Amino acid sequence: MNPVWPCDTVALDEENGALVIIDQTLLPGEFTLLSLTTLDEFVDAIKTLKVRGAPAIGVAAAMGLYLAVKKLGLERLTEIKAALAASRPTAVNLFWALDRMEQAALAHKEAPIDALYREALRIRDEDIKSCRAIGRHGLTLLQDGSGILTHCNAGSLAAVRYGTALAPIYAGLEQGVSFKVYADETRPLLQGARLTAFELQAAGVDTTLICDNMVSHVLQKGLVQAVLAGSDRIAANGDVCNKIGTSGVAILAKHYGVPFYVCAPSSTIDFETENGAGIPIEERGGDEVTELWYHTRMAPAGVKVFNPAFDVTPNEMVTAIVTEHGVARPPFTQSLTKMRRRDILK
Amino acid sequence: MNPVWPCDTVALDEENGALVIIDQTLLPGEFTLLSLTTLDEFVDAIKTLKVRGAPAIGVAAAMGLYLAVKKLGLERLTEIKAALAASRPTAVNLFWALDRMEQAALAHKEAPIDALYREALRIRDEDIKSCRAIGRHGLTLLQDGSGILTHCNAGSLAAVRYGTALAPIYAGLEQGVSFKVYADETRPLLQGARLTAFELQAAGVDTTLICDNMVSHVLQKGLVQAVLAGSDRIAANGDVCNKIGTSGVAILAKHYGVPFYVCAPSSTIDFETENGAGIPIEERGGDEVTELWYHTRMAPAGVKVFNPAFDVTPNEMVTAIVTEHGVARPPFTQSLTKMRRRDILK
Repeated sequence: MNPVWPCDTVALDEENGALVIIDQTLLPGEFTLLSLTTLDEFVDAIKTLKVRGAPAIGVAAAMGLYLAVKKLGLERLTEIKAALAASRPTAVNLFWALDRMEQAALAHKEAPIDALYREALRIRDEDIKSCRAIGRHGLTLLQDGSGILTHCNAGSLAAVRYGTALAPIYAGLEQGVSFKVYADETRPLLQGARLTAFELQAAGVDTTLICDNMVSHVLQKGLVQAVLAGSDRIAANGDVCNKIGTSGVAILAKHYGVPFYVCAPSSTIDFETENGAGIPIEERGGDEVTELWYHTRMAPAGVKVFNPAFDVTPNEMVTAIVTEHGVARPPFTQSLTKMRRRDILK
Repeated sequence: MNPVWPCDTVALDEENGALVIIDQTLLPGEFTLLSLTTLDEFVDAIKTLKVRGAPAIGVAAAMGLYLAVKKLGLERLTEIKAALAASRPTAVNLFWALDRMEQAALAHKEAPIDALYREALRIRDEDIKSCRAIGRHGLTLLQDGSGILTHCNAGSLAAVRYGTALAPIYAGLEQGVSFKVYADETRPLLQGARLTAFELQAAGVDTTLICDNMVSHVLQKGLVQAVLAGSDRIAANGDVCNKIGTSGVAILAKHYGVPFYVCAPSSTIDFETENGAGIPIEERGGDEVTELWYHTRMAPAGVKVFNPAFDVTPNEMVTAIVTEHGVARPPFTQSLTKMRRRDILK
């Protein structure tokens, strides 16, 4: 294990005016910290998935906005915000974090740069705290010794620490509650194989890697008692947008009678979007599918490829949504609204 | 396109005592014909998926048994049969073809080698004829212009010619009926990306490659009006064993109200096996998952891997089973028994 890991996935190096991230495209083979100082670098890092995972993107964008405004001047805030917002279209945490930053600057006209600095660190601290709380609430839904299936990576590497979907597993570790985790590899970019397997194995969690198309078989064999997934955006009605493949896992879980839990900070809930149909689904280049991961071509030249990066899981497939405020159950339109008022849910 | 393709996937080179196959592990990058002459080579070719697809394995095993017995002597028939039978455990066509070969030798004690030769060619000819008939029957279930989803490769490369699940698409081509095919890549060995996309593209079929975990999204978007899959073994009750991931596709198809058709020669039906629980599921090495396809490692060293090569689709997910005799509908215990008597089904 690399001696630097575990570390914060996203960090602010104030002294050098740098956003420090782990280059997640190189994991698990190489563990490289990147020190980014320009707006172009911040945008590129998000676009090319060097930093990914909805909460981590939010924190990285907040820190990036602070650093860029400090360097380029407050008068360019709108332009900087727009550039960061255009990096990826689906994760709402990105827009949420950028809006908070802008409002912080506007609210403190006497010292806007200081306000941006404080707000970026506040967003980071809240993320850490939220993930801890998600872990605590999520753990109440799980039985010691259970098989847990997880999709993509919604772990430490997707947030600052602890993660969202993996937070209950880490919370369990601290309390001596252990799980047998099945991580699906999550094509095309293999975040399950490269990131989830990496961080769970490093933490000493019993982890088995499967291909995405083995989910039905593993559920049929009774190896899984709960599914934990993250989210990039949750509509007001509880429709869950998350990494491509999530809706299939959720439908299969329901078919086999296994609960499907979504774990995400409340900043993931987009009350402006009524249902999943209103969430833009990013489509990425076909070479992610045909070339695998910096690899020889695995499909005939010229074949068409459809490569949506996300999908929408209808709310009726979701057993519960776990945020830092507690566990929301259907009907989600009501329970999420209650959560919005920051009521503690049971 | 390679000038040799399309050609028979499995062929007997009587002059040189050789079984001629396409090395499917090298597709689509390289098109290489292998001329195999020893029992070890025949067994290895099946085991390592140089030749794969249930019908093709049956034909290759029949030809291999003939060639090996001719070379090594009739007294070693039992041993040769056992070696070929041990190459892969799931596809029943393998055992069915080997049994037919053995019976042909026993029935013609005066000239058993000749009988083996004739029987091997008969199995090949029947495969070609069956696949043509499957295509004809399957085509009656499809609408011109439909979106068709297919899993793994049950095409020309999985049989001698025409294939099973892809046979209706080829039959359509001949009749000016066209489809928009979505081929899922089929991890871990990417038969969809490497083989299905290759052969459909070569035939001029409109083909779009997707990852396995995009199936739910593609169905949700209404892009698919029918699913076509092959099978390695169908139990007497209609439970369908096929490439890992098939059961998930079937459950998702049912969820979205899209018909799920299984296309296979009647030799795939194993009346000795009451239901899917009785079908042995081959488990293959974890490196198929972690190393992708002759590739750098994409998962952390030491991570556990579960790599079942097949799964079982319960009969209630299957809309119809198409064989050379026609279209069998639920309840399958009755319709398949009728098919066994070689009645033509409507």
